[in-house]
Amino acid sequence: MSFDRLIEGIRRTKNPTVAGLDPKLDFIPAHIKEEAFAKYGAALEGAAEALFVFNKELIDALCDIVPAVKPQAAYYEMYGWQGVRTLARTIEYAKSKGMFVITDGKRNDIGTTMEAYAKAHLGCVEVEGTATEPFGADALTVNAYLGTDGVKPVLNVCKDKDKGLFVLVKTSNPSSGELQDRKLDDDMTIYRTMGNMCEKWGEELMGEYGYSGVGAVVGATYPEQLGELRKALPHTFFLVPGYGAQGGGAKDVAPAFDENGLGAIINSSRGIMCAWKKEEGLDPKDHAQAARREAIRMRDEITALIPIK
Amino acid sequence: MSFDRLIEGIRRTKNPTVAGLDPKLDFIPAHIKEEAFAKYGAALEGAAEALFVFNKELIDALCDIVPAVKPQAAYYEMYGWQGVRTLARTIEYAKSKGMFVITDGKRNDIGTTMEAYAKAHLGCVEVEGTATEPFGADALTVNAYLGTDGVKPVLNVCKDKDKGLFVLVKTSNPSSGELQDRKLDDDMTIYRTMGNMCEKWGEELMGEYGYSGVGAVVGATYPEQLGELRKALPHTFFLVPGYGAQGGGAKDVAPAFDENGLGAIINSSRGIMCAWKKEEGLDPKDHAQAARREAIRMRDEITALIPIK
Repeated sequence: MSFDRLIEGIRRTKNPTVAGLDPKLDFIPAHIKEEAFAKYGAALEGAAEALFVFNKELIDALCDIVPAVKPQAAYYEMYGWQGVRTLARTIEYAKSKGMFVITDGKRNDIGTTMEAYAKAHLGCVEVEGTATEPFGADALTVNAYLGTDGVKPVLNVCKDKDKGLFVLVKTSNPSSGELQDRKLDDDMTIYRTMGNMCEKWGEELMGEYGYSGVGAVVGATYPEQLGELRKALPHTFFLVPGYGAQGGGAKDVAPAFDENGLGAIINSSRGIMCAWKKEEGLDPKDHAQAARREAIRMRDEITALIPIK
Repeated sequence: MSFDRLIEGIRRTKNPTVAGLDPKLDFIPAHIKEEAFAKYGAALEGAAEALFVFNKELIDALCDIVPAVKPQAAYYEMYGWQGVRTLARTIEYAKSKGMFVITDGKRNDIGTTMEAYAKAHLGCVEVEGTATEPFGADALTVNAYLGTDGVKPVLNVCKDKDKGLFVLVKTSNPSSGELQDRKLDDDMTIYRTMGNMCEKWGEELMGEYGYSGVGAVVGATYPEQLGELRKALPHTFFLVPGYGAQGGGAKDVAPAFDENGLGAIINSSRGIMCAWKKEEGLDPKDHAQAARREAIRMRDEITALIPIK
């Protein structure tokens, strides 16, 4: 019903970051792929197995120091239903290790259909009177171009199941301004208008730390807007992509935080997953230790600037 | 690279409609579910099998008179990865019967990630040098809140593979106006601005009938905007949801068409899938014949008003 569980994880680990799990085959060390292909064939089934083994090793190496993971649905769908099964297995494994799981799916649709997405990713579906969790993430990213009735079904599931959602407000990509920075006839930008809607939608889902269960995605690549939105949206927790590979650094993400060092979680995907490729002479079998070192470096870089109180 | 294949299907069948395949368990006759649960258990696996059998029977009953199907991704994700496997099987089966398949996923993300979605749903992914089609649809619905670089990777795959995309412009839901009807500082609505972007993105993907491979989703529930957009976007093919269960009728969708009766395809999901529930005394085993009768009724209602030339 709020992001309290996520905030508690951030406080426990003293780490306001999330590891993005966007596992393309190119990112995975050869020995993992070879073993998976030998067992399951060099096609979608084997690829999906390699993705899972890679994710599992990353989760094992990160779960005591990073509070959350963010699997990006696209990279699983790219390997067919077999890849989507790996998404389900990854979520289950990360949760078993105590991590908060944000499925980055940017889902959106009209009310009845959005209800199906909400059940799929955050809630339960009933089959013959028995409820099952199809994917069971803790939070889902959502695109709210369709307005309130495309968001409401997710709010309902979040209330029932103590889950959260992050609405796209100001995305990290170069052309995000094409639409999002345009001003409406009341002189307010679209991203700010969307941010205000997050504050409104969150009113029913307030948590103990002053943040609701309706968060916002705001890119590290736009630090000025991060600061503007932090001030304007005091109850909206931020998921901040764009750190690392996309160009944002600790200084860029600093405006996302409140005076207690809370209010935001910073994502790094390639930076962590591909850290092993940057350490010269590293045995690829130790890829997850390189990921851990990068996660610690990132945590220390950010918390040196913005300590968590 | 355009919607020529879809338009040829519409001309061949003289039917500008698409059957939405949004198969909730509630929509499926008991005998199909019972058999699937007996074989695969009354959980996600059995549910996913029931979905597939239901879809297959619908496709068999419709494929000679309806040119296209539109599976809605949410209803498959709701039944876990097993449901997503049914999506893949459904797409494959519909294509084997000569139907054009539009995956309604409303996908959206930054460039690199959108490339993964484009490969997943429309293109191919390489595993050890061998290319596989993970889902292999003919077109994908896309939400363009992120701007051009969230659309470009889909355009690229569409060019390579002769596929198409439909961008959300003016959606059919009650609150679509909250954001989409807002006016920008140049006095143009957001939906119209998005529509203009579709015309621009489509320039590189023009087809023989004057329509590009970049279509637009415009709801039947807003006939005035349908007419406005039809005039303003002469090269943009429309996918029109909201007919039937959502309240739109033949008169409401008429403005979507050009003077040749082309330029749009009208979707009906529940109207067709659940037709069997409305025919009194019908044996549920004949559900697909009821769907066929409803598809013919819908076709005749629309083409009586708007003949295809």
